[in-house]
Amino acid sequence: MVPRRLAVRIAYLGGGFAGWQRQPGVRTVQGVLEQALAALYGRPVKVTGAGRTDAGVHAAGQVAHFDPPLSIPPTGVANALNSLLPADVRALRAWPVPEGFHARRSACGKRYRYRVAWGGALPPWEAQRRWLVAAPLQGAPMAAALAAAQGEHDFAAFALSGHSGHGPRGTVRVVTTARLRLRGRRLDLVLVGDGFLRGMVRRLAGALVEVGRAAQPPAWFVSLLEDPDTRPPAPTAPAHGLTLEHVWY
Amino acid sequence: MVPRRLAVRIAYLGGGFAGWQRQPGVRTVQGVLEQALAALYGRPVKVTGAGRTDAGVHAAGQVAHFDPPLSIPPTGVANALNSLLPADVRALRAWPVPEGFHARRSACGKRYRYRVAWGGALPPWEAQRRWLVAAPLQGAPMAAALAAAQGEHDFAAFALSGHSGHGPRGTVRVVTTARLRLRGRRLDLVLVGDGFLRGMVRRLAGALVEVGRAAQPPAWFVSLLEDPDTRPPAPTAPAHGLTLEHVWY
Repeated sequence: MVPRRLAVRIAYLGGGFAGWQRQPGVRTVQGVLEQALAALYGRPVKVTGAGRTDAGVHAAGQVAHFDPPLSIPPTGVANALNSLLPADVRALRAWPVPEGFHARRSACGKRYRYRVAWGGALPPWEAQRRWLVAAPLQGAPMAAALAAAQGEHDFAAFALSGHSGHGPRGTVRVVTTARLRLRGRRLDLVLVGDGFLRGMVRRLAGALVEVGRAAQPPAWFVSLLEDPDTRPPAPTAPAHGLTLEHVWY
Repeated sequence: MVPRRLAVRIAYLGGGFAGWQRQPGVRTVQGVLEQALAALYGRPVKVTGAGRTDAGVHAAGQVAHFDPPLSIPPTGVANALNSLLPADVRALRAWPVPEGFHARRSACGKRYRYRVAWGGALPPWEAQRRWLVAAPLQGAPMAAALAAAQGEHDFAAFALSGHSGHGPRGTVRVVTTARLRLRGRRLDLVLVGDGFLRGMVRRLAGALVEVGRAAQPPAWFVSLLEDPDTRPPAPTAPAHGLTLEHVWY
């Protein structure tokens, strides 16, 4: 039996892509994935991704769905895709899903990780996926600020400018977990939530770094959450520090 | 006072280099490092590395020395180098050393790590530095074989063909530590020794994988150590799994 719909979990290094979404004339993750699927099945295949990651953002566990025109066993699909995909995108796993499954709309949660380091240089393989700042960062004020971000808030101050949110929730989102992991001069910001505004994780990271380097007090971070019309809004951390790690269904 | 000699610890991703050693017309680590130093000091500077890593091999802690023609503080040297070097080479630290210091000849030990995984695909950032094999690997026979490699042996069967060793030791070397770290479907081979023959770690890794996938018994591995004229010699694992991690002085 031909599975009507397949899901595929993919990982990519964002540096070589103008983001997830297909666009004419530029290299995107959706674009190269659809190209590989077209080569595999011999006809055009459209994919839908769970999250439209921006240019330069990485994924360790992006999920996409598509409707295969031919029957190829799911394990064969992942292997065949990897022989057709460029080295900076890998299909980790493919599996059959019910017809009603939708990679974006069926998702009930996502985990993002933003990586920061300070001080001297990083090895190249780490510098690809971690933002290096000059000033030393203090973990305690960052943790105090971050604690305020947990729960339901209007994250308008952390959305890309001009972004007023989609649907009935507007710019209100629920962050179920907000965690800082500090090891030496490396700091990971881990965020789990039911949905994220465009640019939200990078702006949360950018604002936290302001607090960490003592350019702003934790109260400033809290004011961005409580009074989202505060101007100027939070600064945006660079894309290469961000990874979409996991999508829950 | 101008320090007469500086050492610099560098990290690089080997994929974009035809190895360490300067060669006309190709991109090498020594080449781009000397180019950056020439730009920094305004005149030619020669560097000497601790280990001449082959094409595709990475370093987390390669060490090189050079004689600076001008006085720039060592911390300034590392920062300035990083602004001049391409993203796949980073200067981690620079420090003054005595005039008699020699990056290769003064080294008293080196640590290499060879990374292997089996089964499905790896995320791109891991695939850069880990050899992916298809067959599942059994850790126990590999560990049994590896234990035999510890200590002083004639490693001729693990040298690149035609390599008869340098100096009075010939192809005899001392491996002080030989360790396997197994986590899930990932396996790291860690080797510490006073010196390594060209190709030795990759051939030890290649032979161990033969044992791990049950293509050869541990006794075959031991025979390569005890009877180095055994033919055919050990197979060579690919360069991209190998990292020079540390050099001791």
